[in-house]
Amino acid sequence: MTPTGTTTVIDDIGLLVTNDPEIGEGPLGVVRDASVVIADDTVESVGPRGQAADRRIDAGGACVLPGFVDSHTHLVFAGDRAEEFTSRMAGKPYDGGGIRVTTEATRAASDAQLRALTRSRLAEAHRAGTTTIEIKSGYGLSVDHEVRCLRIAAEHTSETTFLGAHLVPAELDGRADEYVDLVCGEMLDAAAPHARWIDAFCETGAFSAEQSRRVLEAGKAAGLGLRLHANQLGPGPGVLLAVEMGCASVDHCTHLDDDDIAALAGSDTVATFLPATDFSTRQPYPDARRALDAGVKIAIATNCNPGSSYTTSISFCVALAVRDMGLTIEEAIAAVTSGGASALRRADIGRLTPGAAGHAVVLDAPTYHDLAYRPGVPLIARTIGPLAD
Amino acid sequence: MTPTGTTTVIDDIGLLVTNDPEIGEGPLGVVRDASVVIADDTVESVGPRGQAADRRIDAGGACVLPGFVDSHTHLVFAGDRAEEFTSRMAGKPYDGGGIRVTTEATRAASDAQLRALTRSRLAEAHRAGTTTIEIKSGYGLSVDHEVRCLRIAAEHTSETTFLGAHLVPAELDGRADEYVDLVCGEMLDAAAPHARWIDAFCETGAFSAEQSRRVLEAGKAAGLGLRLHANQLGPGPGVLLAVEMGCASVDHCTHLDDDDIAALAGSDTVATFLPATDFSTRQPYPDARRALDAGVKIAIATNCNPGSSYTTSISFCVALAVRDMGLTIEEAIAAVTSGGASALRRADIGRLTPGAAGHAVVLDAPTYHDLAYRPGVPLIARTIGPLAD
Repeated sequence: MTPTGTTTVIDDIGLLVTNDPEIGEGPLGVVRDASVVIADDTVESVGPRGQAADRRIDAGGACVLPGFVDSHTHLVFAGDRAEEFTSRMAGKPYDGGGIRVTTEATRAASDAQLRALTRSRLAEAHRAGTTTIEIKSGYGLSVDHEVRCLRIAAEHTSETTFLGAHLVPAELDGRADEYVDLVCGEMLDAAAPHARWIDAFCETGAFSAEQSRRVLEAGKAAGLGLRLHANQLGPGPGVLLAVEMGCASVDHCTHLDDDDIAALAGSDTVATFLPATDFSTRQPYPDARRALDAGVKIAIATNCNPGSSYTTSISFCVALAVRDMGLTIEEAIAAVTSGGASALRRADIGRLTPGAAGHAVVLDAPTYHDLAYRPGVPLIARTIGPLAD
Repeated sequence: MTPTGTTTVIDDIGLLVTNDPEIGEGPLGVVRDASVVIADDTVESVGPRGQAADRRIDAGGACVLPGFVDSHTHLVFAGDRAEEFTSRMAGKPYDGGGIRVTTEATRAASDAQLRALTRSRLAEAHRAGTTTIEIKSGYGLSVDHEVRCLRIAAEHTSETTFLGAHLVPAELDGRADEYVDLVCGEMLDAAAPHARWIDAFCETGAFSAEQSRRVLEAGKAAGLGLRLHANQLGPGPGVLLAVEMGCASVDHCTHLDDDDIAALAGSDTVATFLPATDFSTRQPYPDARRALDAGVKIAIATNCNPGSSYTTSISFCVALAVRDMGLTIEEAIAAVTSGGASALRRADIGRLTPGAAGHAVVLDAPTYHDLAYRPGVPLIARTIGPLAD
């Protein structure tokens, strides 16, 4: 962060993605041989090379993009599930049941441990180009532990999501409705002051559409924005519920039928795809091409969590989207910048235009194509912007 | 590189992979709470935490592996082929024809440009954990240009491979036999002093089995070791040829039939799989599980090149091998360390045991499982060893 009143210029940008077609070429609004002046963390101007400012960051002719918006993570947790991953790679199917393993480890961790783990993952995400990150609770699953996880998340981001309805905790096994009462009552009351959003895992084995609807309605009444996990492990009613309830985003969407696509296309609900999850669980990839062609608004996020997608790498998600989801590189870049911003209903991020946040990624590459063309190579030379905002 | 006579200890290793089952547990010879003393770039001892030495590298309880052996790359080239990649992702099949595009760019580059590009890629590979790297020529395709590429490669590695028979150059289009005469005659005479190995691209559209045999025979007569590109784009006679000729390695092996597997299993020829290539060309992945179960010796390498696999990341290859080739993480780790060493017929690398090279990778992770479990995350905290040897 620069001191108040200081201007910074990112200069000698070979290829700048602004995400504004009125400023530059094509859907990404690309400007060549550019510079961007940032004043007090807000973009002041986009112009040719050599604009003046107090401080200069030299992009060395490389490509510069808006900072990545990772609109779906579960960063606050303790323990890992490497053994579960290994069993899965040996053939055991993923069913989400391992969430309880992480809940046990998270409850057992001290505040200091949980805070240190979260910070370490945030630093990793920032090195990987992420400048805005959404963080969900969901490994506490009791009033005190959910609130603790949200407090720690809120130390680092304003995009906090209360996900008490992640899984029924072991101590209430078989009593899902009773747990939903708790989530919608005492837990929500305690969590709401620390959260911007509410979310539920609407899936066979987690929560039904009716239970998820109760959670969303209670959250809405408490003034929270709405999001939903849906249609990850199979077809289901979650996408239609999300659209009906006006969720900002419905996430996973691995299994979309014609009705789901039509409903999404006629709505402002963003379909957020999480391809690293499909990679790490050997699920099929979602047909993002079909959704996009139908007019659905899309985003792509990491879903960083210890069970089904333990990565902070947006670049990796971009490479998978291009190889396995039928997106062009431009569509994938939009999905992790302006798409992520839409999924968080934010107009101030995901673009590099006057008035937007001065959050940027300088690549160690001449073009954004390299994010798909050079898979696995760490191409983020520098991340400009806060750890999370 | 440390001064002669200095000893270095890598201390506080939480999990050490030695690749020697007599030193540690399981096929990877794992030792917990270990340290490794290196004297003059050779491992002197493997012992418990706290061994004494002149200089101490603190692994901080993390996992330490033998440095990665990348036994198949084409690092000396100019230009890139991002546009070809984009066309391919839009549906154009890969046929290897783009090699000529790189040949044109490589010939047009100055020595200084080609050297700088090569060094930059080597530095990237080293940051990604690679301590021994094989580099092929094959983008010169004339006597002078092939020799120039080999000279530049030989500045950085002893594992240089003469691949004049990569593709018939444009100026000899349709005159493949004439070009093979050149490769086996004047070009080989000029190249042999700068190469350890000879290789050919035995594939429909490149060189026939008979042409490849001529190249290998000429190379053998010139004292070079033998390797072969085969069975990448479809079934073919290359694998059987490689085994018959006693090649150290036959590379790609995407398409293996029963006869190929049986021949490999009864030989010392290593099957080197290049999964990042299958990723970037949307080819099927090879059935490495079947090969391994039949007793075939295997390696995994990056095939770093601008057309079909522009990555230096061995970690990425490991993640693909576990997800898509049916290997366990231990088998994948062996394939990029001791497997790569076998593919180069080297007994001094790919293991961390007394007498072996002191080339090691310190992970930013407690276990090697994370190389598959955390895809896309740069987990190489430190690479110990030369840029290439």
